[in-house]
Amino acid sequence: MNSSSGHIRIVLIGGSGYAGFEVLRWIGRHPAAEVVGVFGPENELGALDSFHPLLSGQVTLRQELFSEKATAALKADLAMLCVPHKVAMSYVPALRKLGLRIIDWSADYRLSDAGVYEKWYCPHTDPVGLAEAVYGLPEFFAEKIASADLVANPGCYPTCAVLAIAPVLSAGLIEPNGIVVNAISGVSGAGRTPSLKQHFPERNENFEPYAVGNHRHAPEMEQILKAITALETPLLFQPHLCPMDRGMLCSIYATPAPGATEQKLTAALEARYDDKPFVRVRTDVIPATKYVVDTNYCDVAVRVANGKVILFSALDNLLKGASTQGIQNMNLMFGMDETTGLY
Amino acid sequence: MNSSSGHIRIVLIGGSGYAGFEVLRWIGRHPAAEVVGVFGPENELGALDSFHPLLSGQVTLRQELFSEKATAALKADLAMLCVPHKVAMSYVPALRKLGLRIIDWSADYRLSDAGVYEKWYCPHTDPVGLAEAVYGLPEFFAEKIASADLVANPGCYPTCAVLAIAPVLSAGLIEPNGIVVNAISGVSGAGRTPSLKQHFPERNENFEPYAVGNHRHAPEMEQILKAITALETPLLFQPHLCPMDRGMLCSIYATPAPGATEQKLTAALEARYDDKPFVRVRTDVIPATKYVVDTNYCDVAVRVANGKVILFSALDNLLKGASTQGIQNMNLMFGMDETTGLY
Amino acid sequence: MNSSSGHIRIVLIGGSGYAGFEVLRWIGRHPAAEVVGVFGPENELGALDSFHPLLSGQVTLRQELFSEKATAALKADLAMLCVPHKVAMSYVPALRKLGLRIIDWSADYRLSDAGVYEKWYCPHTDPVGLAEAVYGLPEFFAEKIASADLVANPGCYPTCAVLAIAPVLSAGLIEPNGIVVNAISGVSGAGRTPSLKQHFPERNENFEPYAVGNHRHAPEMEQILKAITALETPLLFQPHLCPMDRGMLCSIYATPAPGATEQKLTAALEARYDDKPFVRVRTDVIPATKYVVDTNYCDVAVRVANGKVILFSALDNLLKGASTQGIQNMNLMFGMDETTGLY
Amino acid sequence: MNSSSGHIRIVLIGGSGYAGFEVLRWIGRHPAAEVVGVFGPENELGALDSFHPLLSGQVTLRQELFSEKATAALKADLAMLCVPHKVAMSYVPALRKLGLRIIDWSADYRLSDAGVYEKWYCPHTDPVGLAEAVYGLPEFFAEKIASADLVANPGCYPTCAVLAIAPVLSAGLIEPNGIVVNAISGVSGAGRTPSLKQHFPERNENFEPYAVGNHRHAPEMEQILKAITALETPLLFQPHLCPMDRGMLCSIYATPAPGATEQKLTAALEARYDDKPFVRVRTDVIPATKYVVDTNYCDVAVRVANGKVILFSALDNLLKGASTQGIQNMNLMFGMDETTGLY
Repeated sequence: MNSSSGHIRIVLIGGSGYAGFEVLRWIGRHPAAEVVGVFGPENELGALDSFHPLLSGQVTLRQELFSEKATAALKADLAMLCVPHKVAMSYVPALRKLGLRIIDWSADYRLSDAGVYEKWYCPHTDPVGLAEAVYGLPEFFAEKIASADLVANPGCYPTCAVLAIAPVLSAGLIEPNGIVVNAISGVSGAGRTPSLKQHFPERNENFEPYAVGNHRHAPEMEQILKAITALETPLLFQPHLCPMDRGMLCSIYATPAPGATEQKLTAALEARYDDKPFVRVRTDVIPATKYVVDTNYCDVAVRVANGKVILFSALDNLLKGASTQGIQNMNLMFGMDETTGLY
Repeated sequence: MNSSSGHIRIVLIGGSGYAGFEVLRWIGRHPAAEVVGVFGPENELGALDSFHPLLSGQVTLRQELFSEKATAALKADLAMLCVPHKVAMSYVPALRKLGLRIIDWSADYRLSDAGVYEKWYCPHTDPVGLAEAVYGLPEFFAEKIASADLVANPGCYPTCAVLAIAPVLSAGLIEPNGIVVNAISGVSGAGRTPSLKQHFPERNENFEPYAVGNHRHAPEMEQILKAITALETPLLFQPHLCPMDRGMLCSIYATPAPGATEQKLTAALEARYDDKPFVRVRTDVIPATKYVVDTNYCDVAVRVANGKVILFSALDNLLKGASTQGIQNMNLMFGMDETTGLY
Repeated sequence: MNSSSGHIRIVLIGGSGYAGFEVLRWIGRHPAAEVVGVFGPENELGALDSFHPLLSGQVTLRQELFSEKATAALKADLAMLCVPHKVAMSYVPALRKLGLRIIDWSADYRLSDAGVYEKWYCPHTDPVGLAEAVYGLPEFFAEKIASADLVANPGCYPTCAVLAIAPVLSAGLIEPNGIVVNAISGVSGAGRTPSLKQHFPERNENFEPYAVGNHRHAPEMEQILKAITALETPLLFQPHLCPMDRGMLCSIYATPAPGATEQKLTAALEARYDDKPFVRVRTDVIPATKYVVDTNYCDVAVRVANGKVILFSALDNLLKGASTQGIQNMNLMFGMDETTGLY
Repeated sequence: MNSSSGHIRIVLIGGSGYAGFEVLRWIGRHPAAEVVGVFGPENELGALDSFHPLLSGQVTLRQELFSEKATAALKADLAMLCVPHKVAMSYVPALRKLGLRIIDWSADYRLSDAGVYEKWYCPHTDPVGLAEAVYGLPEFFAEKIASADLVANPGCYPTCAVLAIAPVLSAGLIEPNGIVVNAISGVSGAGRTPSLKQHFPERNENFEPYAVGNHRHAPEMEQILKAITALETPLLFQPHLCPMDRGMLCSIYATPAPGATEQKLTAALEARYDDKPFVRVRTDVIPATKYVVDTNYCDVAVRVANGKVILFSALDNLLKGASTQGIQNMNLMFGMDETTGLY
């Protein structure tokens, strides 16, 4: 840290969306970090509380037009990027040249295979960054994150699904084939740009599947599960929109491996997360979104029923699924306790 | 009626919005009316169930580009216009030339004084129509409506407020000055065009005042109250958006006239609506939106407290506040019982 | 029909809950049926609009204490029972002795095997009725329903799941083993009795799985699928509560049979429902609850993705999932077009 | 503070409701306070995360049966009481005997006139405490709060209304007579006990007035306005329930005093709250609940329209309207900056 106050100095790229909002709110509560500058595109400049009136009085920064010079002048330690896919990789090389460590919320550095990225998004313009990026799932990659210069913050759905699946798959308690991830998300997951689909009278009181058979979070899940377990898990991921602001829940159906019991499955989860402060293995209640919203927790549980393993996993799509997971990564990158500022 | 089947043949102008949707749904239940054609603007043509997937299989019409010739070919009795303010008056003269009677949902023919209209909207291009139009509040103008060629269907807020205020004002039980109409509406009242304000994550769990001090429904209320009571009532109207699909509730505060009691006020409401099927004077419950949504009812009640008269009034902004009130007007215009098809 | 007016005279047992509410509302719109009396338990007597203020002015009946004599005096044709499981079978024998045909909304006559019933509920006290009862899923059992004296109206979840699964299973396009039914329901499905779980601040903005591995609708689904297809389908059914009033959606995952394609699967659905007015095979949109609420439709669709068949099915849990499906059954029982009064 | 760690040691009485939940959550973020024990009634004992599953892992305390001895053993500095009206005053004298300072969330010590209290509640059993209690509205009574032994935390509605009214009334810019406070609250304001009124399918999509003409928060408002301004303000307070979890908004209608302008009114608010961190005078937006939920802010604004002054005021009924306002009081009582732990 080059800040005399001992604080991590953060530059935020993209403060006008929901992930940026939560970064601003939670860094505001953090005892050892501060946002010292915010940059955005030309059509979204101005006081941050004009985008987020809740922050008025608390956040006095403006979103300014990005320039390397202005960024350099801030003498920051870290850049956080809350910008859309494809846009992030246009900033990252320049930011790294300025000596900034980076946490990126987009998908641009999550898929280590550029070919897979290009299939789902577009040609990748920063293969060097892509090769170096560390996947920011702290419960599995804490050590690499601690020393990383470029952290790709995971997608909300992959975080939610992988935290439930990985331990029981690693333990050989479920078959790697035929996993179905049935997921629901609150509407903030769709972003802040208005559309007919998310227009209140269309979305309210309306539960709806989307992206049938082709959601780009599926390859991210498969890649990370392979990185953790060394197994190929060609899974089916089906998301749905639920009429609520925030919250995500996965109901995951898998085939039990021979000898798998509910007790062993639960034990595998508990063993994996025993020392992980933000994953709670629930045996008292079935995970529900209301038990995790406005927190950095992911709640998981497992049951065996009618010859299937059912895994449940719940988190706040904007927090453990985005903004506060990024802060958890920051804590690790800067040598702090991973829970700092996250309760 | 020139339909051999004895049915009222209806041409609908503007089927892609919420009022058009409810017209299509409720006319579908009506035993003596049918929509025979639907017209709209160039950028909103196509099968009606592409706009309203709920209607699939039930409504097989397409929204076609309007032309006088195509309209004439339908040999309709009635045109219903669910188009925006300012647009309606561009259709009405042509439709009247074709011999069609008209029910218009816009504000274009509601304000009998062109000067008032122009202050709140724009110059009026059909002064002849404006002079002949009848205000379609059936509980007060049934006779005129029955013989009208051009009915201006009331705004949702004016319907809700006027039905509560008019009887007690007519009876001399409240002072005409200083009335405050505090109103809330479900979000469908804001129409079907997406905007940041009505984007689900912005509007959900959010209660918000709007149009402070300048809502254009205020002059409509004052005009109709004067038409009914011959009194000037310079009122204050303050609307709010409530995070729900539909429903409207007015809480109206007035100064009691000397001698006014809760009993007399209730009696005035009951006397006025005794023979009106769609206004219910509630003494069993306080009006609430859930008791009126998906119906053509307006519920009203009155209380005296702390030296004020409080009137409550609730209706469904898309039904008694728009579409089914128009059908109630149609029933009157074509000599049917006013409740036909409306339960 | 013994009514001079040609109307079906209906006795309703249990008018204070949500299914009873919708029966009262929709029979009120029916051109050839009327509710002539309503009976309930001692602690829930009184004017029906005291339970359902929306019905004030439209329904003037009172819920009276049940007696055979009072019921006989009404000279009804049909009894509709909207009472809880276990209670229904205490009424049915007496009602049948009075010569009434019966539609029962409870589970008491749905499971033709008394042993299965007793496993999930309690000992069955009316084995005679159970043996004669016809399962009221009109799209599959219309003929039997037409002549039935006792119709067991299906559960909401079984209706939703079976309408999607049965045609493709019958056509041999999916494997009967390993089917997963992931379902969500609006909260009205939990009934009208208050509880902490359904207390607004607990349920709102909260998506939650329940009845993990042991929902009693699973055996009902398996039984009906067997009755239709002659196949054993040991399925996994997992319901969730979604924070909205009404609407149900099943996302069903199955293994494709060799040679199954999306085209063949869709064709199987279309062939089965071509002449069925209330099941819509959607190829224009993915089923969503908002497209079916307040209607008697069930929307179904099928996709093939990542080696799985996904079936989607949506309906209004209180209508096609309960009340209006019962009216559809009534229409069949009394020789009317099955759509009468149901748009 | 008698804690060696320099922390304020807090005993919480009543941790199972919503105010208790927020106290536990926000004290968990506070750098200089901790809850060391929680007590409750016999039928609500057990682990706090069994009442509030969100707190699992973070709050490990149990709610124990209250006893003076157990309380004394905790060597606490402060007791916070989140128990119902009438119950609080049964605890307070004993707690004070133990030397604890007290913040009470009930109404028991808010109404300084025992006669007024008894009219709305019941006979008062702790007149000594009542006489000494300080009303905990920090923006007006900070000095008294700082040295108080017993602080009565204000009601949510009085906080919301008084913060808007008091400055402009003090400045002589509105007439003290004829003020109407039209208020709405999210449903958490009704507490955690289930009821038919707050049953999800009854309350969702339902906006409803309640407590017409007799809400007990009205005398609290009048008393505090008099304490601040020395004026009698016989106002009309009308609350409504809005279908959302949390948030409160008052739309307040008053008669302008001669010479009052929007500019002067705004200036009076700004002058009063210039140095108050938690009241924001909004000129950029009209206050809305979404701008204040999950914060300790109260947003206020004023407009003049149609001869009336309209004041808007919004806060989170569980935070600035309850729990975090109590923590703000605690900060003052223990000599800390009033914002400590409240962002």
